[in-house]
Amino acid sequence: MATNPEELPIVLILKPFPFIPSFQENFSNKFRSLKGTDLSVPVNEFLKKECQSVKALVCGAKFKLTKDILDCLPSLGCIVLTCVGLDNIDLDECRKRGIVVGNAGTVYSEDVADFAIGLLIDVLRGISSGHRFVRSGLWSINTEFPLGSKEFLGWEVLGSEVAKRLEAFSCVISYTSRTKKPSAPFSYYSNVIYLASHNDILILTCSLNKETFHIINKDVMSALGNKGIIINVGRGALVDEKEMVRCLLQGEIGGAGLDVFEKEPYVPEELLEMDNVVLAPHVAVVTVESYSALHELIISNLEAFFSNKPLLSLVKYN
Amino acid sequence: MATNPEELPIVLILKPFPFIPSFQENFSNKFRSLKGTDLSVPVNEFLKKECQSVKALVCGAKFKLTKDILDCLPSLGCIVLTCVGLDNIDLDECRKRGIVVGNAGTVYSEDVADFAIGLLIDVLRGISSGHRFVRSGLWSINTEFPLGSKEFLGWEVLGSEVAKRLEAFSCVISYTSRTKKPSAPFSYYSNVIYLASHNDILILTCSLNKETFHIINKDVMSALGNKGIIINVGRGALVDEKEMVRCLLQGEIGGAGLDVFEKEPYVPEELLEMDNVVLAPHVAVVTVESYSALHELIISNLEAFFSNKPLLSLVKYN
Repeated sequence: MATNPEELPIVLILKPFPFIPSFQENFSNKFRSLKGTDLSVPVNEFLKKECQSVKALVCGAKFKLTKDILDCLPSLGCIVLTCVGLDNIDLDECRKRGIVVGNAGTVYSEDVADFAIGLLIDVLRGISSGHRFVRSGLWSINTEFPLGSKEFLGWEVLGSEVAKRLEAFSCVISYTSRTKKPSAPFSYYSNVIYLASHNDILILTCSLNKETFHIINKDVMSALGNKGIIINVGRGALVDEKEMVRCLLQGEIGGAGLDVFEKEPYVPEELLEMDNVVLAPHVAVVTVESYSALHELIISNLEAFFSNKPLLSLVKYN
Repeated sequence: MATNPEELPIVLILKPFPFIPSFQENFSNKFRSLKGTDLSVPVNEFLKKECQSVKALVCGAKFKLTKDILDCLPSLGCIVLTCVGLDNIDLDECRKRGIVVGNAGTVYSEDVADFAIGLLIDVLRGISSGHRFVRSGLWSINTEFPLGSKEFLGWEVLGSEVAKRLEAFSCVISYTSRTKKPSAPFSYYSNVIYLASHNDILILTCSLNKETFHIINKDVMSALGNKGIIINVGRGALVDEKEMVRCLLQGEIGGAGLDVFEKEPYVPEELLEMDNVVLAPHVAVVTVESYSALHELIISNLEAFFSNKPLLSLVKYN
């Protein structure tokens, strides 16, 4: 590749994500970045004016890569996403235009799995509410803290990293997905309602698409039952949030650990005061280790693209 | 055993612990209980007046079984503890008097291990502080939540249940104890300072005795370093608490997850507002499952004693 800065390939950055300083330097040695964040003009205008020759862009989950946006970028050949989910991108349009797409691959898997287990133990054992109990001074006036529970009887798990951790806690694990996974030594349910009715805990790690939108609806929550717990580290809209709030208020499900919400950063007010609900500000992936791995992957994907090689975390169009 | 209630063996109860109703019934079918809790007279007076023929007692961690107390109970032959630790009992005196002692054995091990992992993930990934961040409404005004970290590099682990769980998180595990355990496939350090200087996280699950009082002192915390984390699910006095507060205030250690404290329920005020400290009101063992197992064990121990059989969780005097 060229070493004269003026000759470096241009990469459009459409997500303001926290750069690790060493990444910034490494990136600048290889690419010229064009920033489409904090614009003073509408984004379409900026793209049409400044980005007609842009061949590659980096983008996160919050920016919608619609047909309209792609229309503004006639030279685009490569999109590198900083997220795993593909719910913000019009893949059909990318396919038609021959744009290759890379996502975050598996860089977040371990951290999200760790976080899911942390949320779960917190909900089951009341760590956040115990912490508030201590902070409030109630412990010293001897109010009794309620008994915890460890209904580690069964789970819906998507993601082998979560399953691996749960096995160490002697959990009975089962799962659902479009097809049975020959490599997964767990009970398979073809339907999320059957799964919920046979388990106490649903851990949601799947991606959001037309099939999974509101997959956890009233019927699933009713099947899960009043001791059931929902852990969501996938996407907010996997769950019918309004219905979940109602179920929690009326004790129709037992608790929830939520890192994601339907309209982030909005969180339904009713959830804020519930001791059986643990809330996190979409941070399951937010660690130095995840971000370092992500940064390396972004650079490697862009290098591959500009060298006419396949992306390392190439997304299949289906 | 006798079925006439008047002929059932008497058992003195010296700990007001939350009985599960089914246990209460099962217990009452086998023993007559004499309650030494909520007394209107000093306990010694009660023991001398009402308990001269008492052969067995059940007691928890908060009641000190000193020589003075044992002097009040001339017929005592058996003590059944509801705790694992032996820091509240004068074992030498028991040995001299031929009193057999049973403790809670392993009934709490899994729950405490679960809780230790929950505390650890909470401290590392900021679950409690993230929860407060969301509850406070700060998320919606877009303040950035700090990056988490997963310095899962090494640990001091006493307790195979904790180690088993940590392995699933791909942790490097090492430990210290009086002697190397041939069954533990982890690095052994003969000295807690070496251990702390080679690891990022210390998980304390050991019992409190003369050798382990303040075992985590200034030198150990200094060896652990400014990224180091202490998780204590053992006993508060394993740690020099005053020194730990100083180290946390000055950033000489990185964080702590604490279920136990030196002078419970007192918690040093400085800890209450720290986002890198997670506090729990001594509840690692408090689950329905632990308590059910404990209740079964208490009854089995008492039955064994009154049938002249060895206790199931007999404590060795050393």
